[in-house]
Amino acid sequence: MIKTIALLVPFVLFSASLFGQQENKQIVRLAKLVIDSTHLETYNIFLKEEIETSVKLESGVLTLYAVAEKNKPTHITILEIYENEDAYKKHIQTPHFLKYKNGTKDMVKSLELIETIPLIPQMKIK
Amino acid sequence: MIKTIALLVPFVLFSASLFGQQENKQIVRLAKLVIDSTHLETYNIFLKEEIETSVKLESGVLTLYAVAEKNKPTHITILEIYENEDAYKKHIQTPHFLKYKNGTKDMVKSLELIETIPLIPQMKIK
Repeated sequence: MIKTIALLVPFVLFSASLFGQQENKQIVRLAKLVIDSTHLETYNIFLKEEIETSVKLESGVLTLYAVAEKNKPTHITILEIYENEDAYKKHIQTPHFLKYKNGTKDMVKSLELIETIPLIPQMKIK
Repeated sequence: MIKTIALLVPFVLFSASLFGQQENKQIVRLAKLVIDSTHLETYNIFLKEEIETSVKLESGVLTLYAVAEKNKPTHITILEIYENEDAYKKHIQTPHFLKYKNGTKDMVKSLELIETIPLIPQMKIK
């Protein structure tokens, strides 16, 4: 086990370097949610409003790109990009985020937040 | 079971509508890959080159946003957005895509392509 970890270290370090961890302080995350199907309509309305307001009002929220799986519309993934840690901390204290969070807490069956490193931090959507 | 499906239908239809399926013909997909750790460095170099070339040369490739999980750098997710089906079909025939695909085929332990519907199709990255 230790040997396996030791063997992985250089790859992890190289990967972190290649994935641009040093070059920027962006927070890039995948949020994976499963929504109660009986509340999916309402949940999606809450989420849409929250995202539109966040991106409009918060310069540090670089994107909240949400997708639903075609074959499992209750399974939602959000690519979240914040300018830095401070922007994220501010975001979760805004009235619009709290409205979404409190308004949907009984609709969310599961939530997984996966911290990630972008391969190309400056990548945009045309 | 049939009753459950019947109950789900309106939510699925509403969700598809809310998620903008009718309003655009974009292909939006999550590619989830697991890479052989012994080839991760090389794989990432191939992927970075392929993405940079695709986004530069192909107007219909709107983004290829790749992230690696911080705690599992061999686990990579790519948010792929193509202008339409035709742009995607052209993409997978380009020399740079084929170089990546053939060059990495023995490095990829698993690949899952998940078709999705964006909540806000016009969403960008600032």
